This record gives sequence, C-alpha cells and structure tokens, in this order.
Amino acid sequence: MEELRRLIEVALGKRKADLVIKNAEIVNVLTEEFVKADIAVCGDKIAGIGNYEGIKEIDANGLYAVPGLIDGHTHLEMSMLTITEFARLVVPKGNTSVVADPHEIANVLGREGIRVMIEEAKTTPLKVFFEVPSCVPSSPLETSGAVINADDVAEILEWENVIGLAEVMNYPGVINGDEEVLKKIIVAKSKGKVVDGHCPMLRGRDLNAYISTGIQSDHECIDEDEAMEKLRLGMRVMIREGSVARNLKSLLSVAKLGNRFTMLVTDGDRTVRDLIEKGYLDYCYRRAVEEGVDPIKALQMCTINPAEYFGINAGLIAPSRIADVVLLRNLEKFEVEKVVANGEIVGEIEKRFSYPEFVKRSVKAKYLKPEDVKIEGKGVARIIRVVEGEIVTEEEREFVEGIDVDRDILKIVVVERHRGTGNVGKAYIRGFGLKRGAIAQTIAHDAHNIVCVGASDEDICKAVNRVIDLQGGIVVVDGEVKAELQLNIAGLMSEERAEVVMEKLNRIHEEIRKLGCKLKSPILALSFMALPVIPKLKVTDLGLVDVGEFRVVDVFVS
Amino acid sequence: MEELRRLIEVALGKRKADLVIKNAEIVNVLTEEFVKADIAVCGDKIAGIGNYEGIKEIDANGLYAVPGLIDGHTHLEMSMLTITEFARLVVPKGNTSVVADPHEIANVLGREGIRVMIEEAKTTPLKVFFEVPSCVPSSPLETSGAVINADDVAEILEWENVIGLAEVMNYPGVINGDEEVLKKIIVAKSKGKVVDGHCPMLRGRDLNAYISTGIQSDHECIDEDEAMEKLRLGMRVMIREGSVARNLKSLLSVAKLGNRFTMLVTDGDRTVRDLIEKGYLDYCYRRAVEEGVDPIKALQMCTINPAEYFGINAGLIAPSRIADVVLLRNLEKFEVEKVVANGEIVGEIEKRFSYPEFVKRSVKAKYLKPEDVKIEGKGVARIIRVVEGEIVTEEEREFVEGIDVDRDILKIVVVERHRGTGNVGKAYIRGFGLKRGAIAQTIAHDAHNIVCVGASDEDICKAVNRVIDLQGGIVVVDGEVKAELQLNIAGLMSEERAEVVMEKLNRIHEEIRKLGCKLKSPILALSFMALPVIPKLKVTDLGLVDVGEFRVVDVFVS
Repeated sequence: MEELRRLIEVALGKRKADLVIKNAEIVNVLTEEFVKADIAVCGDKIAGIGNYEGIKEIDANGLYAVPGLIDGHTHLEMSMLTITEFARLVVPKGNTSVVADPHEIANVLGREGIRVMIEEAKTTPLKVFFEVPSCVPSSPLETSGAVINADDVAEILEWENVIGLAEVMNYPGVINGDEEVLKKIIVAKSKGKVVDGHCPMLRGRDLNAYISTGIQSDHECIDEDEAMEKLRLGMRVMIREGSVARNLKSLLSVAKLGNRFTMLVTDGDRTVRDLIEKGYLDYCYRRAVEEGVDPIKALQMCTINPAEYFGINAGLIAPSRIADVVLLRNLEKFEVEKVVANGEIVGEIEKRFSYPEFVKRSVKAKYLKPEDVKIEGKGVARIIRVVEGEIVTEEEREFVEGIDVDRDILKIVVVERHRGTGNVGKAYIRGFGLKRGAIAQTIAHDAHNIVCVGASDEDICKAVNRVIDLQGGIVVVDGEVKAELQLNIAGLMSEERAEVVMEKLNRIHEEIRKLGCKLKSPILALSFMALPVIPKLKVTDLGLVDVGEFRVVDVFVS
Repeated sequence: MEELRRLIEVALGKRKADLVIKNAEIVNVLTEEFVKADIAVCGDKIAGIGNYEGIKEIDANGLYAVPGLIDGHTHLEMSMLTITEFARLVVPKGNTSVVADPHEIANVLGREGIRVMIEEAKTTPLKVFFEVPSCVPSSPLETSGAVINADDVAEILEWENVIGLAEVMNYPGVINGDEEVLKKIIVAKSKGKVVDGHCPMLRGRDLNAYISTGIQSDHECIDEDEAMEKLRLGMRVMIREGSVARNLKSLLSVAKLGNRFTMLVTDGDRTVRDLIEKGYLDYCYRRAVEEGVDPIKALQMCTINPAEYFGINAGLIAPSRIADVVLLRNLEKFEVEKVVANGEIVGEIEKRFSYPEFVKRSVKAKYLKPEDVKIEGKGVARIIRVVEGEIVTEEEREFVEGIDVDRDILKIVVVERHRGTGNVGKAYIRGFGLKRGAIAQTIAHDAHNIVCVGASDEDICKAVNRVIDLQGGIVVVDGEVKAELQLNIAGLMSEERAEVVMEKLNRIHEEIRKLGCKLKSPILALSFMALPVIPKLKVTDLGLVDVGEFRVVDVFVS
C-alpha cells in the first residue's frame, strides 16, 4: 500500500523519482512509435512517462530505450553456469527475463533441484519464471534421478515464480491419450497456468489433436509451412535461434509477419563462448534484424509478445510495469549503453548464493573396473552411427569383435549414477573418430547418467572414475587426464566463473581434437547419445535402445 | 479426462465429431487470412480444423466463419431485460460472450444481487464473465442499497465466472491514494485478476498516476489524442459505440490501427429498441466497417483482442477453444446465417431461470404524501439545468417560489427506497419542459432510489406511489397513470419479453412527449439526475448536491 502510494506520488510529480532516465528515445513496442520522454522509476516499477525529476538521473539523450528482453523458452542448466554467472553474462547485454524449464536438474534431483534453482534466481537481477518439467523421466528405458508425476506438478505449480507446465515433449503420449500426461495438462489448465508444447514436425490431424488439449506453444518448427500451420491453429510459434539449432533463417517469413503469437527464443542452446562473445537473446534479435526483420517487430518478439503470453508484467515501457529498460546507442545492432533491471542500474553482479551440499553430491556411482565395461561375445553388431550436426542417430550393422579404431568402431558406456544400481549400458558407436583415449561426462540427456565414449576400456574407466571424483563434469583422458571441467552442481553446472568455464571447455575441445575426433561439437553430440526418445539407436544405463521399437536390444543381432 | 480423450479422438478423425461446419471460409483473426476448411466440434470445444466428418453437419459452403463476438465491457442491467431475454436478442446476432460489470444491481442488492445474475447467466447460451463493481456506493452523498468493500471484493473475486475488478471509476480516489480504493486494486492484482478502468479526460501525470496502480483499460476516450496517449501508456483502449455515447467516429484513426490493445465495446449503452432493430456488438462492428475500418481489424477488436486481455478461451477459431462460431453470408455487413455457441447451434432461447422473491421486493419506501415533497420557503434558488445529450448538468440561479411551468421550473425528488429511511431529497430543475404530469422511475444511477420529476406535487406522489406498487419501474402520470413499465427485478429489469418492454417504452416516450418534454431521451436523462459524482448540481435522497463542492447544499442560496 505504501509502495503504491509512493508510486502514485512519483507519477504525479509530487515526489522525486528514485531514478529518471532523461530524454530517451523510447521505442513503444505496443504502438510501434518512437517517443522522446523521461522515464520515472520508483522502486522496481515504472511510475510515469513524461517530464520528471529524480534523485538519480541518467542522461539518455541520443539513446534508444527499449524494454528488457524476455526469452520465452530456455533451459538454464545447459549453459553449464550457475544462474548468477549466467545473469552476469546476459543481463548487462539487455536480457532481463527468461522463462526456464529446469528439466535437466529435475531429472537429477527432482523437486528439490527445481527449488534450489528458484532460490538462486531470486538472488540475481535476472527475472526467472519457472515452468514445471512435464516429462521427468522422459522414458522408462533409462534410470533417472527423480520422477515428477501429476501430483508433483500440481504442487510445484503453486510455488512462487512458477508460471506453467513446461514443454510437453511426450506428444505421442498426448495423442494417444496417456493418462499421466493428460493429468498434468488438466491440472495446469485448471490453475489457469500456461502449458507449453514441443512437437517437431507434427502436422495435420495429429497436430490438431495435440493442440486440442490446450497446449499453447511450440519451439521446434523448422520450416515456414509447419510454422504457419501451427500459427493458424492458434499456437504461439517460438522461433529458436541457438548456437546449434538455428531456425531463424528458415522461418524468416514468419518472423517478418510481426504476429503477436510469435517469439524469438534460445531454448537454452547458447554455448558459454557464444554467451560471452556474441550475446544471448540480444544476439537472436540482432540476427533477425540482419536478416531483414523490422527492428520493432523483432523487438516485439522478444518483449511484449512473450510478456502478453506468460502474463509477465514487463515487455513494455509503461507505468506500473517492472522497470526493465535497456539504453541503446544503436537500435539495429543493439549496442547497449546501460541496462536498468527491476528499477536498478545494472553494475557488477556478485555471487550471493551458495548451493547446498546435497546438490554437490549427486554422483552416486562406484568406481568402474575394466571388466564392468567389457562386451562379451562377437558377431554382427548394431552400431550407433553419429550424424554430424544432428541428435538423431542411424543404425549400422557390421561384424564386430571389439573396439576397432581403424574402422572407427568405439565403445560407448552409460553408467547409472543416481541410485547406485551399478547399471552399466554398453554399445559400439561410430562417428566420434577417436584414435585413442576417452571422453566422459555427466551431461547426458535426459537422465544425466555418466556417458563415456572411448578407444580403450582402460581410458574409459579412467575418464568415468575421474568424473565420479569430480562429482560431475567433463573429462578427457589419453592415458592420463588431459583436460577436465568440474560440474559438481547436479553434475550439470560449474561453480566457476563463465570465463574459466569457457577456457576449460576450449581446452577440452582441443584435447578431443588431438584424439582424432572431427565432430564440430563432440560434447554436445555425446550428451544426446543417451537420450532414448530421439531415434534411432541410443544407449542408456539399461543397455542399447532401439527407439523406434521402444525397447532395449542386444548389441549383437541374434 | 474422458472429455479430453474424446476431443483428441475427434481431432484425430478416429471418432465422428458431434458437429462439423463443412467448407467454411474461416476468417483467421490471428494470421489475418481466409482459410477454407471444416471445423470439427466436440462438446463445447473446437477439436480440429481440416477435413472432418460429424454426427451433425452444417454445409457452410459460401459462408464466412468468424469467432463469436466478445463485448469487453457492458452493464447488462441497463438493457432493462433479464439476461435470458438479452441473450435471446444478442446471441442469434453473433454475440456469444460479454464481460459484465453488475454495478447497478450491486448498488441495490449487493453481493446477493451479483450472485443471482451469475446464476441466471449460467442458464443461457451467452457466456457472461463478471467483474466485481469497484465503487458501491459511488458516493457517500446518497443512500444505496448495499456496500461492497475491499473484503467483499476479495471474496467475490473467487466466485465462479468472476474475472476481475470492474471499472475503477473513482479516479480522484486512486490519484489521491484513497485506502479503500487502492486495497481493492491490490487484492485484485494479487489474485492475478484484470483491473478495468474508467478515467474520462484524464491526461498527463494524473493519467500516469492512475495507470501506475495497475489499472489496465479505459472505455471513456472521446478523442484520438486522449486515446493515443492512453494506448502509448499501455492501456487497453475500449472504443465505445452505444445508442447514446457514440465514440467510434471520433476515435476512428485509433480503430484503424488494428492495435492488439484496442477493442469495441457497448458499455451497456444499447437500448432495447436498438438491440432488436440494429443489433448489439455486431452493430458496432458493422459501424466500424462502414467507417472504413478493415473488416479483419474490426473483428479483432471484438474477438481475439478482448479474448487475449481477459483470458477468455474463445475469440479465435482454433482447436481447444470454445466453439463459438458465427456463419455469415456477408462479412462487411455481418449478415448472420447461423450461430454456434458453446458447440451448439443456437435456436430458440427459452427461459430457464426464475428470479428469487427477495430480488422482486427491493422497493422499501412508504407511500408519499404531498407534504413529503413540499419545498419550504422561497428566494433565489439553485436550479439544476439539464443539458440535452449530456449527463453533466449546469447550475442556474433564479428567484423561485414553487413549480413554474411557464419558466420551465419543475420539481425533482429522490425517494430513498432501500432501507425505509423516509429520506426525500427535493430540488428545482429546468430542461424537462413538462407542462403537466410527472415521471417517476427506479432507474437512477448509482443508488437507484426513486427519482421523479413533475409539474405538480400531486402527480409526483401518484407517480412515485405507483412505482412503489410495481416494486420498481417507470411510470408516467398525467392526473392518472398514462403509461408504465414494471421493472420489479431489483427495480432495474423487467420480467417481460424484450418486444413487450420495447412497446411499453415506446408508449412511455409518447406519453412523455404529450406532457411537453422535448428531450430526446428523457428516461435516460432522468436516470442521471441523481448521480452525485457527475457535475454540477444533482439531487439524491439526502438533498441537493453540489458535486464540485462534494456536499449537500440548500435549495435556496443563503
């Protein structure tokens, strides 16, 4: 009440504003106009637009003022950074809000993992709106660290800063009327929450069926026809422009529409290096403008459109909204002069959160011995074939009696690490091209067990055991440990500063190249080899999985 | 769950739809395209758009399919009809949803009045989304039938079909930080509900202050500058086009913008006659198109824009949305062929609700005797001056010693009718032009006491007493009762059919004209004479009110 009265008095000019941004060229993303005026800020809100005086004032003459950018769909864990570090990189670039699906940490630590991220987010200037992961685990064909069922969803939806049900990836489940999936949707709808979707290449009647349940968005479109069909059927089309999955160019005509149901999103797909060197959603905006999207329309896709959809009280420079204002020297290039987030000028973002111990003790596997990774027998084997730049794999069949670097037949193992079951899934794989050594990591969608590819059983064990020592991370071994990055926050995120993480990742990639690997993104590729919901052959802690047949199969063709 | 599964199966084409609208030219108000396809309906929802078969089918070849219209701001009581009768008139014309502020009945019967309207609405095919009136009573300078305080607001906001806080008319209260007003806003915001506004001519810092509290809309704009200022500041601008208050023409450039924050609304200002002969929001749409607004943009203002704002699951022909579809022979003229509301073809709308007795016993005044309406003394009097076509009045000062028809000095009285206080406010008034007789009615904003204007004390008493006998209504007396309309539902609405109400109103207006009145809308004019929040002189049961001075004043200048 007192806060609101103060806001009113500031708006009336009866009291000095806490902060006034003077003479800014305000980009009004609602009316699509430029308006030169002062922006008066009181507490974390905008009090008024007009002519104001403040205790603190910023001279914004010659600068554009745009609303802070809102990423409508991301996974923060995929940055490998704490939210604090992530915020330190992205907020000064003008990214003030994100909608995050904590899908990765939920697969490791369940609800407590989500809770701890919500807690960290509160200590940063980045506004993080969380959604409840809808598919934990994503498949019964692997052992995950946790289960989030419909009752959990109902409860978590009531937590602070939780605004919806995250991407319902199990679209076959939706279409087939799977009880648990529908329950989650129904409970979210009944609470008036957003329900986000994920339905690559779904079209026609299947798409209608998926949407008929009330799922509202999709971020998986790869061509204009698909995107337009979804838009016509009332879906919010989130155009993803990540470091790897780059859909903007092929969806350009949709981006140019300036439709209120379109957004630009990252889907968590921005590497640390890109975050540091190129930016976050500001980069996606810049890309859109480079491709010929009108700057105001591009801005709408990053501000008012997600704000309207998610009910976020930002995305427009107007009274009563959260004071997230980015001052730009250049509108097209999004050259940031200053950022105001929650009414405060963004300066140094310092660490104010420490992760609790249980988060750093998530790797519960025992040391591996060479006999644990041995594949008994020989014969015609089902070999996983990595496809450069894709997360789908192919299946090849050849006679195999062990690792054979000349034919590029390596071993891949997945070591269960949540429950101490001792499960080790083993298979042969082609495409990594290692001539020696091994790579192990705890980033392994979706269960995030330890996945390791190697050219010798000894190096595989060394790499996996080092990962266990680190309580999560990425390790490259060539007789000895050559490079490593500790990711001891749930096995997913580092406690180090972003620049250090980038440095270590560079080093890791260098060492991997030395082992003979020619893949562009070997860590990313490896992280998808254990995901049993994407075709065709994958390996989990339960063994080799034929995704199409939805079952564990033998390494050798019987 | 079973319902949802049925919807999915229909969308997939695995099960016949309950209803299919075949081969319609669908107007997609999101993508602004025309798409020829079938619309499959299951229960009250749209299951799919494409090629479908149904148990029932409508051949819509050659017809446009548009979403049912949504009036974002109305007061149903002002039609003088029950919701059933109102629905019978408007739904077949393509109006399927309204957002209603039950401000009038709340002033008479409080929360129970609101509840009974919610109950009636459920029995009709019209979807009525209610808002809690924010200003009951609107002034301490009159005696109303009820009070709705902040605690009531908090409770009523939890009722079924209640979606927000209705127009916060007390804008001076907002700007001055009035505790009770701000409390109502805070409670609505905290529940994530909409907060509608009402701020005629508010501009500049005052407007910023009003908006800073989180009030989201305004329907009182009368010129383009005002509307554009409000829009720029993030307000939803509702363009009102009623029977009397016709703002469309002067806001035409705003209507033509096609901005997502603009709407067309009626504000309850459609007479029964207009509803029958010209239509409801369909009429406003038609007017907009006549004035040169692009039909799709005009439709957006009546469909997707209010749907998005209020979170109404309609306003677009797409899967999962309520199946409200209007089939048109002509898009520009909105010539309706058939209406589907909640998935059902609209046919005869029958009465399925009876108002409880307490609603019909709302007039608790005792019979008036001539001495009750006598104004003692003589001298220079403050005379209320009616202004044709306006709800503001002016003040004139002249020597008066009683009613004087030659100088058009008549008497106006307001009889308290809620609590049996016996209060009778009395004053002199100029502008009605009656040569004899009297007009009494229980429609008297906002407290809806009995207001009566007359040329003789005897006829005033006769008219008032007949209104009491009727338990509400409008009565014209000229020595004897010449015409009347019973409005025994809270003194505001008739139990009769719309055509009968229209007939009786025609008769009433005829009789009023015979008495010498030249006002275009004497009933409407009279209904605003007791409203002590609109300048300048008004009369309530407490006496003559100087609105500017915010106090009861003597009839004679002392």
